[in-house]
Parts: sequence; C-alpha cells; structure tokens
Amino acid sequence: MHDPSFILNSINLLFHGALVMFMAAGFTMLEAGLVRRPNMPIQCRKNLGLFAISAIAFLFAGYNLMFHQDLGIWQPRDIAAQIEQGYADHAYWFFQMVFVATTASIVSGAVAERMRLLPFLIFTTFLAAFIYPIQGSWSWGGGFLNDLGFIDFAGSTVVHSVGGWAALTGVIILGPRKGFGTTEFIIASKPLATLGAFILCFGWLGFNGGSQITLSTTEDVISIATIYANTIVAATAGVAAVIAVLVLRYGDIQLSAQNETETKGYIGLIDGALGGLVAITAYPLVSLSLAVLVGALGGLIAMLGGTLLRQLKIDDVVGAIPVHLFAGIFGTLAVCLSHPDANIMAQAIGIICVGAFTVVTSSIIWLAMKYTIGIRRDDE
Amino acid sequence: MHDPSFILNSINLLFHGALVMFMAAGFTMLEAGLVRRPNMPIQCRKNLGLFAISAIAFLFAGYNLMFHQDLGIWQPRDIAAQIEQGYADHAYWFFQMVFVATTASIVSGAVAERMRLLPFLIFTTFLAAFIYPIQGSWSWGGGFLNDLGFIDFAGSTVVHSVGGWAALTGVIILGPRKGFGTTEFIIASKPLATLGAFILCFGWLGFNGGSQITLSTTEDVISIATIYANTIVAATAGVAAVIAVLVLRYGDIQLSAQNETETKGYIGLIDGALGGLVAITAYPLVSLSLAVLVGALGGLIAMLGGTLLRQLKIDDVVGAIPVHLFAGIFGTLAVCLSHPDANIMAQAIGIICVGAFTVVTSSIIWLAMKYTIGIRRDDE
Amino acid sequence: MHDPSFILNSINLLFHGALVMFMAAGFTMLEAGLVRRPNMPIQCRKNLGLFAISAIAFLFAGYNLMFHQDLGIWQPRDIAAQIEQGYADHAYWFFQMVFVATTASIVSGAVAERMRLLPFLIFTTFLAAFIYPIQGSWSWGGGFLNDLGFIDFAGSTVVHSVGGWAALTGVIILGPRKGFGTTEFIIASKPLATLGAFILCFGWLGFNGGSQITLSTTEDVISIATIYANTIVAATAGVAAVIAVLVLRYGDIQLSAQNETETKGYIGLIDGALGGLVAITAYPLVSLSLAVLVGALGGLIAMLGGTLLRQLKIDDVVGAIPVHLFAGIFGTLAVCLSHPDANIMAQAIGIICVGAFTVVTSSIIWLAMKYTIGIRRDDE
Repeated sequence: MHDPSFILNSINLLFHGALVMFMAAGFTMLEAGLVRRPNMPIQCRKNLGLFAISAIAFLFAGYNLMFHQDLGIWQPRDIAAQIEQGYADHAYWFFQMVFVATTASIVSGAVAERMRLLPFLIFTTFLAAFIYPIQGSWSWGGGFLNDLGFIDFAGSTVVHSVGGWAALTGVIILGPRKGFGTTEFIIASKPLATLGAFILCFGWLGFNGGSQITLSTTEDVISIATIYANTIVAATAGVAAVIAVLVLRYGDIQLSAQNETETKGYIGLIDGALGGLVAITAYPLVSLSLAVLVGALGGLIAMLGGTLLRQLKIDDVVGAIPVHLFAGIFGTLAVCLSHPDANIMAQAIGIICVGAFTVVTSSIIWLAMKYTIGIRRDDE
Repeated sequence: MHDPSFILNSINLLFHGALVMFMAAGFTMLEAGLVRRPNMPIQCRKNLGLFAISAIAFLFAGYNLMFHQDLGIWQPRDIAAQIEQGYADHAYWFFQMVFVATTASIVSGAVAERMRLLPFLIFTTFLAAFIYPIQGSWSWGGGFLNDLGFIDFAGSTVVHSVGGWAALTGVIILGPRKGFGTTEFIIASKPLATLGAFILCFGWLGFNGGSQITLSTTEDVISIATIYANTIVAATAGVAAVIAVLVLRYGDIQLSAQNETETKGYIGLIDGALGGLVAITAYPLVSLSLAVLVGALGGLIAMLGGTLLRQLKIDDVVGAIPVHLFAGIFGTLAVCLSHPDANIMAQAIGIICVGAFTVVTSSIIWLAMKYTIGIRRDDE
Repeated sequence: MHDPSFILNSINLLFHGALVMFMAAGFTMLEAGLVRRPNMPIQCRKNLGLFAISAIAFLFAGYNLMFHQDLGIWQPRDIAAQIEQGYADHAYWFFQMVFVATTASIVSGAVAERMRLLPFLIFTTFLAAFIYPIQGSWSWGGGFLNDLGFIDFAGSTVVHSVGGWAALTGVIILGPRKGFGTTEFIIASKPLATLGAFILCFGWLGFNGGSQITLSTTEDVISIATIYANTIVAATAGVAAVIAVLVLRYGDIQLSAQNETETKGYIGLIDGALGGLVAITAYPLVSLSLAVLVGALGGLIAMLGGTLLRQLKIDDVVGAIPVHLFAGIFGTLAVCLSHPDANIMAQAIGIICVGAFTVVTSSIIWLAMKYTIGIRRDDE
C-alpha cells in the first residue's frame, strides 16, 4: 500500500523527533559546560540517566495518560487503525517521548552541583510518568485547556514552563550552592556550553517543525517552512538583542577573559538564543518581522531574568528558569499578538493552571524526598 | 519522471546514511574521551584517517566484492537500471560505506594508546576492502548464510561483531598498555565521551532505520517507526538496567569523583546505552516490551563483559569488545525470541562463521605487521 | 492540496538547510579548537554573534538584493505564488541564509585571537547585507556571470572564496598575532577541532545536496545521491592524499605529541578533508573517480597553501584561506574537467570578478574601521 500522506506524516514525526532526541546532547553539553569543572562527570551521568528514565516512564505510564491511547506495548495496533489516524503509532510515541526528555533536561541544569543523583532520577520518574503527561493531557490530549481555547503550538508552556516550574521548586527546596552569591564560580567549559547551544538550535527546528504533526499537504509544508525560518530568526534576534544591550551598556562586547562581566555577557548570548527559541515556540506561525520581535524580547527576558534570580538569591546554575519559564510565559502570552483565535484569558488560565499543578506536585515530591532519603549531596 | 517509490527509497538511504556518517564523530568523541589525555590527538587523527581509508577502500574494492555489483566508478550506470532496482546506486553505496567506517571505528577504540597509526590504517584498508565485504557477502550479499536463513537485520553480527572480533585479535596480539591492571588510568574527558554516546544514539536511528532500505509503502514507514522507537527504547533500557544494578549493589549511583567506582559506574551508563543498541540491531522489528528486555540484557552484558575482560587481563581501552562483540552475539541469538522465521542453528552458524573468518584473517594481518613493520608505539 | 513536487522540493531545502545550519557548530568547534586556550571563549562568542548578525542582516537586506524577490517580511506571499515557484518561500530563504552564515564563519577563524569582536560583527553586517548578496546576484541571482556561463553549483566561489578573500584582506590589514613566526602557538583542543571537522563533513551533505534545489523527479534524487557520494568521497580522498604525502615524506604519520610536525600533520588531515570538500563543491555531479581526483588535489592544495601562507608571514589562525580560497579557486576551475557546458574563460572571469569585488569592498570596511574605532585587541 502506498499512502503518501501517511508516509510523509510519519517521516515528519520521525525526522523531527530525531532532531529533538539530539537536543539531549545539547542540554548535556550546555550543562556540563556551565557547572564547575569537578561536577562535569556527574552532570553528564545525570543527563544520560534522565533521558533513559524519562523514556521508560513515558513508555509504561505517561503516554497513555496524556493521549488516552493504548500504545500496544505488548502487541502493536493493527495497520488499519494507524492508517485511519494518519501516521504510525510508534512515530508519534517517539516524537512525544523526546519532548518529555526535554522537560526533564530543563530541571537537571537548574539543580546541578548540589543535588544527589538518585533522588533526581526518582523525581524524573514522577515527572515523566505523571506530572508532564497529566498537564499535557489538558491541552495536547484534548482536555479542558484545549476546550477553553488555550493555544500552545509546540510547548512554551506545556514543555518549557513545566520544566521551569519544576526547576524553580527544586532549587528553592534544595537551597543554593555553598558560597553562592559570595564566591565567584568558574564555569567549566565555554566551548562545550556553546556547542550545546548550537545543538539546541539545530534540534529546535525539529521541536517546532515537527509540532505541525502532519506533512501531507502543500499548506503543511509551507507551515513547516515558516516555522523553520521563524525559529532561527527568533533565536538570532534574541542573540542580536542581547548584543545590542551589551554594546549600549558597556560600549563593547569584547571584555577580557578575566572579567566577571565577560562571563555574564557570554552566557548572555546563549541565553538570548535560547530565550528567543522558547518564546517563539508557543506559536511560530507568525510573520518574520514578528518573529524578530518575539525572539528579541524572549532573549532579553531570559537575560534580565537571570539577573533577577541572582538578586533574589535563587541559585539556578545554568539559567534554566529565566530561559524556559520566564521566556515561556512571555511566549505563551505573545500568541495573542498573532493568532486570530487566541484570547489572553485562556492563555493566562493555561499558564496558571499548569504552573500551579506543576509547583504543587513537584513540591510534594521534592519535600517527601528531602525528609526521607535526602536530596542534597554532602560532598559538594 | 516522478517515481515516488524510487524517490522515497533513495531519500531513506541518503538521510539515514547521513546520520550513520555522523556516528564517526560519535566514535571519535567517545574514544578521545576515554583514552588518557596525551593520547587524545592521536585518537582523533586515527578516526579521521580510518574514515577516509575505509571509504576509499570500500569504493575501489569492497563494495563490488560484497554486493557483486559494478558501482560505475568511472561512469555511472544508466537511469533505467537504477529505476528497476528501486533506488539510486550512489545512495546505496553511501549507506553501505558508512557501515564499513563504523566497523573500523570499533577496532580503533580497543587498540588505542599503544598501536602505531600507520599499521592501524593498513589494517583498516584490508578490513574495508576484503574482510568486511567478504563476510558481508555471505549474508547481505545473498550468499550462503542468507540461504541458510541467517537473520541480521542491521548488523549486530555483520557490522558490530566483526569490529569486535577484529578488535579482540588486535588487543591480544598487541598486548595491554604498560601498567594495565596495576595503575589506574585517568580518562581524558567524560563530557566528550558522553557527547560521543549521544551522537551514537542519534546516528543509530539511521543505522537501524535505514536498514529497512525501502520507504515506498505504508508498511515500510510503519516498520521504520517501530525501529526508531525500539532503538531508543533498547538504548534507554540498557541505561536503566545498569542504573538498577548499581543502585542495588552500591545503594546509590552518586559516587564521589575521586572514587574508582565512580568511573566504572559512569562508563557503565554509556556501555548500557551502547550494549542495548547493539543488541537490538539484529532485529529491531519487535514489540516495545521485548525491546526493553533485549536492550536491558544487552546493556548488562556490555557492563559485565567489561569486568570479565579486565579479569582476563585483556586491555580494551574503550570497552569496544563487550559492547560490540558480546552484546552483538547476544542480539543475534535473541532474534529467535521474535522473528517467526529465525532458527537458532542458523543464527549460531552465522555467528561462528563470521567470527572464525574475522579472527583468522585479522590475525594474519596483525601478525604479519607485527613481525615486519611493527605495530606497537615506542613512545607510549 | 497535495502537490508532491512542491512538498518534496521544500523538504529538500529545509532538511538540507538544517544540516548547513549545524555547520555553524562545526566552525565554532574547529575554531575554538585551533586558537590558543585563553581565546576559546571569545571565539565561541564571536561565532554565536556572527550567526545571529548574518541571519538578521540577510533577512532585512541581503536576500532581496541577491534574488530580487520580496520575501514578505511583514506579510508572507500568498500560496499560489509560492506554488508556481515550486517550493516554499521561507524554505528557500532558510537555505540561503545558512549559506551566508557559512561565509561569515570562514572570516571569523582567520582573524581569530587579535581582532576585536565589535568591529568583526560590524564587518559581518556589511558582508551579509551587501558584499555576499551583491556578488551572489551575479551568478545565483541570474546576473551577468550567470549569463556568461559561469558555473558554481554549490558555492566554491560564491560562498567559500568570498569568505576566503574577505579573510585574506582582514588578516593582512590586521597584521599577524604577536609572536607569529617566532613563537610556537599551542592550539587549545584537537578533539574539538576534529569534532568540528566531522560536523562540517556532515553538514556539507546538506550544503551540496540541497543545492540541487529540487527533489521532485527521479533525476533529482539520482543527482542528490551522486552529490552525497561525491562529497564524502572528495573529503576522504583529501584526507587520504594528505596521509600519503606525510607517509612518503616522513615515513610515518605517528609523530610524537611534543613534535611540531605532529601538529602540522594533524591539522593536515583536517585541511585535507575540508580542502577536498571545498574543491568538489563547485560541481559535485561528476563520476566517483573524478571526485577522488578533485578531492585529493583540493586536500593537497589546502595543506600546501597553509605552508605557503606561513612562509609569506600571513597569519591565518585556522587555515581558512588555503581551505576556502585556494581550494575554492581550484574547484571552480576544475569544473571544466567534467561539466559539458563549462568554459575556462567564464570560470576565470567569475573567480576574478568575485575576488576583486570582495577584496575592494572588504578592504574599505576593514580600513575604515581600523582608522576610526580600531580593529585590534589590546589585551592579546
């Protein structure tokens, strides 16, 4: 049988899912680069572990909970059912699974350097099996947020802010690293962090592009082309906005390697890219000029959010919260600038419901572990 | 002319071949990360060199030997012949060539740190021009193993165990590194090794997915979707199994950076991923639950095999033999758990014939070089 | 609507454009690996910045200048116009934009370690907004070089030599690093440089393959398959040629890590790969045997060109000029070996016009900045 729509839709999910899978390498390099050197190996191990745990937990529990569909773990569904649906079951599972791993990666960076690995993996199990899929079912699984008209195309809220909220509760319950705010921490490797940022940009084409889900019509491929262009435009506009601010403020972006500002300015460029990406993710089907605006504001929010957190004495090692939570909230609201059916109330309700649910459930898990097995490393 | 099947089949080979090509970067990072620091540059050069030599040797000799087909090096075949075949000649060559390079990469890691580069590249020439293609012709080239009913979908035996056998003969003939078993060797870079593992996972989607060869029917794309899902599930199950064993045995996987066990546990996670991948490669068209089982066992075999080799005083620097040979044998036998036409005798005969041939021919080449130009570095 | 040609053409541009986008990570790793260690962070920041600036400048100015087409920044063109054209507007913009970023990356490596970042980004703005698009309009935009019969399939001249000429004027006006020619410079990280080279090989499949533009016919996909095979064959032939020269000259390629020659030989392999790639880029639709020849010569030209530049006291930190300019000129001339309609005069005129224009315009910008805001770092 040759059903071109089915083939193209499935290829879309597989190819773009592969790019998103590769983002796991990007998060790992970003985080390994931004921790202090002795923590690099543990951060790498954590990322290998969280990817594995996320996949297994989402396989056995999360997927069915989110999409109310039996995946056929013991026996695949028959072909006719898949054809009616328009794409291969396993392609859809694969594409959705790598999104869960992304959410877990976001948490991993924020709590770096001081959290024990085993409790983190236990948290990841709950996140991938229950927290992520339950809130995801409200919107992408056809639940009440979807009925309300909440719009989140590729997951500024559903993926990124969930990771951000879980990270925020984690770092508050965990507390900052020893010496945070008084000592200057030397990051391990700027080249690896930069590599991570580029890998994330590359993989984000799949993250946003694949979220079109179907690739069977001319309109679909025009949408995906628009998404690719806007995704990269938002990332680059975020970087350009940060450069502009640094030049206006410091007169230059060429700071000496020993200068603390150098480090901030440098991470600023990465934050600019990632903030722009997160912001456009809620709705990348906009005009190129609007993508410039959304990306630039997303980048600046990520940069300024990092400064704000430091002032609040909240220790987010890799800047995951400003990038994924703050820029994610902004992006979700910014949908109202362009989507004809968006309404600000539905967007706000979605943000609040997802946030409240994630904060409450995450807190319960973090606190339960804190007062039983312990979550803090003693060899910091 | 617009022949959709031909176009999609060729895209399948090209896109997936590109992912497999990128595995060369993964092997390089894995190996550069796992050797001692002063050996990093040589290991990088070795991987650049082996990729080049493999491609050229397979171009001029290996391909025709394996597939009994004239590639048309001087003049491409005419289009009609290619259309009848169902995909572009150059696409098929490209896809097969990157498999040879994978085989050569496996050897490279095992013999690291003490083998001279030039003899290694000479060995690679023989491997890519003769050893790999001759044994490959028995199964994938339509030879006697194929007639016997031997099944190896994407190369647990044809690719991975061949690399493993060649590596095993190499390390035995070469002998261990100075200080092996008495001194503790500090590996150069865990982040690079982890990056390598993630790149290999990414590329493996192409390795197994592309081995479906055709993408012209609805059934083809369902198969490829199943392969993607099972490939990642096997990798993650391998990691999860290693984590479970570490937790059961040590009570934790958070070991201090100075601890020797830390290093073992860490490499364990990578070995778990790669062992799971190698094991599922022989037949990834199974149910998701069986992929979990095959991957978990593959991962554990890779981890335990590493311990076994160390006890036998066999010095395999990066753990290539447990991952690619031991898990490869297991995966080839495990085909009998799922494939309706598999029979254990044919699988065993395939494993033994390929192993015997590779060991004998590799030994001849390693020994011939050992007693002429020498294979051991004197500046170790 | 389901227009298979339109869908496949657009996928071709998007998928291959994504691979080219990833080359930005390759250039960053290559350059971060080949500078001295304290310059790694600045080199990373420079590459993030140049990618962003290139994209924004090409979006608002360059694209329309090069292709005389309104991209619809404020409002996308209607679907009918895009369908008539045969592919999605945004897909074409995306594919072309990543080419501009490649050009800017080439300059970045040559002027490393001593140029201030802000002037470099200003130069990048002019390069991406005017220099690159104006010369590109002469050939790919349907201008006078195109009318003359000048052939440059994927940009040996239009992309690579433009980057090379801009780099050459830059390094001459900037002058060499302190200590150049007297001190030996220790490069920061061979593994990262090698990773960069592999990423570039991987991305180059998209660079050359996507330049076929259409993927709607059987002939198109046969062309793309030929391009993939020849691209990798040229890269590997370049490496093999360098290995052959090193073995013939030094009797070995296993040189001790402390040896200066080691470093040269090592970079030689990377230069061999990249030189082969640049050379085949002008016309990759040749026979495999000719790809071996073109790649091998391209690799040797890149290696010997590096030696020549050092003798001329021209300080090109990462060898960008021999690779992208010298091998690019060679490749553009070598089109005459294979393309039935190529004529050596048109090729030479193309090379000269593009070179003269790039040198003159680049010099004006470099010199204007040199005598106003300054281009040289004082904390070298």
